[in-house]
Amino acid sequence: MDDGVCAQERLASIAAASETKEGVTRLPWSAEHRTAFGIIAEWMTDAGLQVAMDAAGTLIGRTPGTGERPALLLGSHQDSVRSGGRYDGIMGVALACLAVRRFRNRFDALPFAIEVLAFADEEGVRFPTALIGPRALAGTLDPAVFAMADRDGVTMGDAMRGFGADPSAAVHLARDPARVIGYIEAHIEQGPVLEREDLPVGIVTGICGISRHMIEVSGETGHAGTVPMAGRRDALIGAARLIGEIGARASRRNGFRATVGQVDVAPNVVNAIPSTVRMTMDTRSVDDAARADFAADIARLASGQAADTGVGIDIAQTYDQKAVTCDPALTDALRAGVTGAGFRAFDLPSGATHDASAMADLCPVAMLFVRCRDGVSHRPDEYAEDRDMGVAVEALAGAIAAMAERG
Amino acid sequence: MDDGVCAQERLASIAAASETKEGVTRLPWSAEHRTAFGIIAEWMTDAGLQVAMDAAGTLIGRTPGTGERPALLLGSHQDSVRSGGRYDGIMGVALACLAVRRFRNRFDALPFAIEVLAFADEEGVRFPTALIGPRALAGTLDPAVFAMADRDGVTMGDAMRGFGADPSAAVHLARDPARVIGYIEAHIEQGPVLEREDLPVGIVTGICGISRHMIEVSGETGHAGTVPMAGRRDALIGAARLIGEIGARASRRNGFRATVGQVDVAPNVVNAIPSTVRMTMDTRSVDDAARADFAADIARLASGQAADTGVGIDIAQTYDQKAVTCDPALTDALRAGVTGAGFRAFDLPSGATHDASAMADLCPVAMLFVRCRDGVSHRPDEYAEDRDMGVAVEALAGAIAAMAERG
Repeated sequence: MDDGVCAQERLASIAAASETKEGVTRLPWSAEHRTAFGIIAEWMTDAGLQVAMDAAGTLIGRTPGTGERPALLLGSHQDSVRSGGRYDGIMGVALACLAVRRFRNRFDALPFAIEVLAFADEEGVRFPTALIGPRALAGTLDPAVFAMADRDGVTMGDAMRGFGADPSAAVHLARDPARVIGYIEAHIEQGPVLEREDLPVGIVTGICGISRHMIEVSGETGHAGTVPMAGRRDALIGAARLIGEIGARASRRNGFRATVGQVDVAPNVVNAIPSTVRMTMDTRSVDDAARADFAADIARLASGQAADTGVGIDIAQTYDQKAVTCDPALTDALRAGVTGAGFRAFDLPSGATHDASAMADLCPVAMLFVRCRDGVSHRPDEYAEDRDMGVAVEALAGAIAAMAERG
Repeated sequence: MDDGVCAQERLASIAAASETKEGVTRLPWSAEHRTAFGIIAEWMTDAGLQVAMDAAGTLIGRTPGTGERPALLLGSHQDSVRSGGRYDGIMGVALACLAVRRFRNRFDALPFAIEVLAFADEEGVRFPTALIGPRALAGTLDPAVFAMADRDGVTMGDAMRGFGADPSAAVHLARDPARVIGYIEAHIEQGPVLEREDLPVGIVTGICGISRHMIEVSGETGHAGTVPMAGRRDALIGAARLIGEIGARASRRNGFRATVGQVDVAPNVVNAIPSTVRMTMDTRSVDDAARADFAADIARLASGQAADTGVGIDIAQTYDQKAVTCDPALTDALRAGVTGAGFRAFDLPSGATHDASAMADLCPVAMLFVRCRDGVSHRPDEYAEDRDMGVAVEALAGAIAAMAERG
């Protein structure tokens, strides 16, 4: 069977391990997670790998007979958002197994071991944290997270123990970087770029750093009828000007993204001038300096606008996550895999966080994006074509071969 | 005692007829309404008037011995918003009583009768309707309103009957326009204009007409990280541009007011491009054609913007209330009263609706605004100075005298 068709069938099959009928809902340490692990273990076994779960609940398939050789890691996460799709995360595990299967009769000939990793939790839906598996391997796991509770009051530590994982041992899983060659993750793009480029796959140059700011615009309320336009200090007029400029200035920067996603107006009634607007600004770039420069630019603009119009504008950073640059050698191997599969090697940034973000603290990382229909993700209608997944398997196998050639 | 000081004392005293300790809460047909009617009846009696309540619950004080002469009406409403101030509405009743008191020994000499009216319900807080008293007098009262229920499930009809009013008779209270000279209402400004002009009172030229529109901007959501800026159809960017233009274009029109007061963004989360923005536009002007022209202007702008940016913009009118022009003769009489009191006669529009809006269906109307501190109204800290109220009593008395001179 064609690898793309096989991937599609496997993803349809594992999609049944879901809490909901509408889309896929598979939370970490759940009954669905356990069912999924059984299925993933079959994929790994079919690829010729030896299967084990580590103390952080990561299912690991490793090439047998490759002894103490340093390992090339591939993988992604098994979990989904609530009522999400069939591809986000789990597709990366499925494609890695199919790529590795191509080498199953010649693992001995490779200069490295291979491991396929199926991480428990990347989405952060059940607990207000995520990336437990890769953080454990990178030695960056904060044990405080085990005390976090889900909405039923179950702590993550208890949930992990109930699943057979071991929180107290998970904090000692850090790998020796000298024994890891790198980590390659295939993932659906979750955006429209590859579809626009008419390409099945793309090479990720880096994972965007993320800044978030809370912007509070303060004016003065008043009756919509009794206060003349002149002399109004309408917080919404001030906010609107800022929203427009954030969009325009982000558009002028190469590869930059800025989004005002959440807006709350007070008092928010038809006949009152808005007194306060609180809104979020999310900015992303593979260039950390560009994010800092953009924030400074908006702060200057806001300060001038506040002076001009009499509204107060307060901007506070609420979140900061550094960018991850993909490794040139691993990325070149992926490039060779994509061109070997007969396609143009097209570069694009990842705007979202992935397991690779946390794995970057351990080793070089690279990512391969697979085109998704209409750029849709985290929804039941998330979809990747058989053929595109087939190209991705070909490209991953080509990358493994290219790394093996480098020795 | 000085009339301004007397007004302040009377308003402090009647403010105790309140459901809440914080501010004044006096809803129609309530125990507090009954207490207030007792106090207002004393003011009317003190002014030399004969007191009666009509079937719509309006307390009416009429000059005795003026037989069948047509009547000059003065007044306002007794009710308040929840936790409102001491002045809105009730001050107009208090000042009218004090102005009429100046004529108490010479009612016979006037060529008209005078009535002071204390309407039950102008704010529309207890029931989703208002202006029962003036609508009854104008013959525009819709009997359907009696079936409306308050939040305890009490219908307005039952509440009125419990108070001693009579809904079935209220629909037959329409006055003969030939027997009414006009209606003059004093009210706090509820805006900052007189304070800016450093004037105690102002002459209302008209009561703004009001249009309300619901504006829905439709774009497309997407992940804040994975969708590049180019090709986004961000509903909030489209809405922001429109909000800015609504403010700027309204500011360029003389005496025009436009307010976007309510904004609801979907999905309204930090990391998603907004797909929809629903927002209200409230426009006010004493010139009905200007409102229509403004709405057409914004519709043209939205249509061009929708074509440029790929967002959909749908604008639907949800409310329309025609402007009321104040009567030149009554307004001239008020002007004479204000200049007679030693102040400049300053014209301004009323941006809010008043009892006079409904009385305009019966007879010529005019209004006198009294300066309020910081433009604040509908709040416990609403405040008018003794001296400003004294000037208003002087001006109202002067207007009555001017009307009497005209014969």
